Amino acid sequence: MNRCFEIKYKDKHTCARVGTLETVHGKITTPAFMPVGTLASVKSLTPEEVAELGGEIVLANAYHLYLRPGDEVVRDFGGLHRFMNWNGPILTDSGGFQVMSLAGRRKISEDGVVFRSHIDGSEHFFSPESAVRIQENLGADIIMCLDECTPYPVSREYVEESMRRTVRWAKRCKESKRREDQLLFGIVQGGVFTDLRKECATALREIDFPGYAVGSLSVGEPKEDTFRVISEIVPELPGNKPRYLMGMGTPLDLVEAISHGVDLFDCVLPTRNARNGMLYTSKGSIQIKNHKYFRDKNPVDPECSCYVCRNFTRGYLRHLYVNRELLSYRLNTMHNLHYYFSIIKEVRRAIKDGTLEKLRKEFQMREESEKKVAN
Amino acid sequence: MNRCFEIKYKDKHTCARVGTLETVHGKITTPAFMPVGTLASVKSLTPEEVAELGGEIVLANAYHLYLRPGDEVVRDFGGLHRFMNWNGPILTDSGGFQVMSLAGRRKISEDGVVFRSHIDGSEHFFSPESAVRIQENLGADIIMCLDECTPYPVSREYVEESMRRTVRWAKRCKESKRREDQLLFGIVQGGVFTDLRKECATALREIDFPGYAVGSLSVGEPKEDTFRVISEIVPELPGNKPRYLMGMGTPLDLVEAISHGVDLFDCVLPTRNARNGMLYTSKGSIQIKNHKYFRDKNPVDPECSCYVCRNFTRGYLRHLYVNRELLSYRLNTMHNLHYYFSIIKEVRRAIKDGTLEKLRKEFQMREESEKKVAN
Repeated sequence: MNRCFEIKYKDKHTCARVGTLETVHGKITTPAFMPVGTLASVKSLTPEEVAELGGEIVLANAYHLYLRPGDEVVRDFGGLHRFMNWNGPILTDSGGFQVMSLAGRRKISEDGVVFRSHIDGSEHFFSPESAVRIQENLGADIIMCLDECTPYPVSREYVEESMRRTVRWAKRCKESKRREDQLLFGIVQGGVFTDLRKECATALREIDFPGYAVGSLSVGEPKEDTFRVISEIVPELPGNKPRYLMGMGTPLDLVEAISHGVDLFDCVLPTRNARNGMLYTSKGSIQIKNHKYFRDKNPVDPECSCYVCRNFTRGYLRHLYVNRELLSYRLNTMHNLHYYFSIIKEVRRAIKDGTLEKLRKEFQMREESEKKVAN
Repeated sequence: MNRCFEIKYKDKHTCARVGTLETVHGKITTPAFMPVGTLASVKSLTPEEVAELGGEIVLANAYHLYLRPGDEVVRDFGGLHRFMNWNGPILTDSGGFQVMSLAGRRKISEDGVVFRSHIDGSEHFFSPESAVRIQENLGADIIMCLDECTPYPVSREYVEESMRRTVRWAKRCKESKRREDQLLFGIVQGGVFTDLRKECATALREIDFPGYAVGSLSVGEPKEDTFRVISEIVPELPGNKPRYLMGMGTPLDLVEAISHGVDLFDCVLPTRNARNGMLYTSKGSIQIKNHKYFRDKNPVDPECSCYVCRNFTRGYLRHLYVNRELLSYRLNTMHNLHYYFSIIKEVRRAIKDGTLEKLRKEFQMREESEKKVAN
């Protein structure tokens, strides 16, 4: 599994690259965007639809699936792939982020973390070893080390202590891993402190993983800090291994991060925004509930070729949304995921053509003009 | 439009028949089941999926669409077919049933009915003429006369007065109809009183409609009364015209009513039950939330060939349902509609083969054994 990642094209002007990442459930092209399938379902969509929209790999959540229906139950169904009927690659996160963002009464020690379920308050314990075992039961192609996702703001002392523990946990994760068919990625922590991030990256490289993620970004820190960390830390991660920016971001974030050499993304934005009626278009995002779309006979985005834009008007989509029709969430999700996957494809082409820098500027201008409209 | 209905096969032993009903948006085979698309959407499904499952005609609600988004808005979008992107036949009911079952503070007079919206309490007025105009704006292929749907129980005197007004309204509906491309059906009222039902049927035949419906059944009366009325009134409706039993019923209801000569059905049962986790199977219905399905690796119905049964386990469907995943409502709806359409196809075959009576007894036994299990 050491040669699972291969770089096909490198951009001359930025750190961006196009590659392929091979798993036992197939090969994906990078940069790749992973739609979020928290509970073994990309909300509202069938697996076939996710694939048709352009999804090559989906993300599921170890924390959620450990609680419901239970990782051993999923294992008994033949693993996540068979449980949800998705035969392509899957990545599970370790639960580190959810323990910090969702669970109650956390208590972290060197051993691991005690927490209470956000559903029924029951007490649970994750250790590096149990997080790996849970993910082995779930059976994803890529699994993640248990980490502590540090919040923002928090003291440097706390981040330093936490990051060093995350490194020790990463070592234990690797040591406890038993399955040969899964790739275990390490996660770089260190908050907004570049020297701590670098210390973490160096330590993880020494442990040696087939891929590296950057965690705890876009957790409340100023955008300048986010991209300062990305620009300084991504080059510290081995160039011949896939790099995964966890839990972000906007279309512009993706393009920027790819320019810095990131290969993998996951984010709830396209799917969650869809369910909240926010639709992406080539002219900026729109709120479909707005009264101005009441009699609008145009598609969401006249430049979009997705199923939704080929078949339905903004007026009908508004009608579905304001009346909470179940079809609304589906159509909105399809459109937004199609938008994200289109961007990824556009970026890949631009990397091959050497035009990524131009594309990045276009996205910057699009986001700036949207901010002006919003203000 | 007088020759819109053609009978292809008649059952030797019952009053059942297989026919074709032609509309400007295509021909459908009868007996037919119309899935309910209240607000111009069969809840959770795309139009393509409805068709793939076997739907040939869908029902939409004039009352709901008049309130949201408004019938004139739908007209401006090119009518219901273009609005919801369903190019097959559509039937709209007149709103009579919803005014009685949903709206507030009704006041019925010879002119029509004043009611308050169930959404915001605003006051509205439906007359026979406005109900036709609304349905002309919506542009369905089959539209219904405004009727008063009498509740159960209610006095014979009330039913008699109401039925005679419904007949006078039916005449006004026909007189006010302007579009030539729509079929206007009359609705037989008269509660559980057979002589009143017959009086109504005779009066409506005199007015002359291209199709006739039976309304206000399955509104709380004993099942014996329901089928007494059906068996006595359906033969009173012209044999060369389509007969539509409004708003019912269970799989057995369909088979029984078809035996009495009914051609068209609509009912929320398969779709609403689906959203409430009740799934039909060839061995009786199941509640997918039950804990016994937690680790069940079988499909919902091993004898079913639908997309859901081919691809997902009961355990996964239970997981989706108990976690309120949006995909749950879709998959459950697909399965139940497939079940209903399969029954309709089975019944059509049985009519051609002369085996309907045998099939009816099978359905009776199935429902009885299910009752025993439930008790």
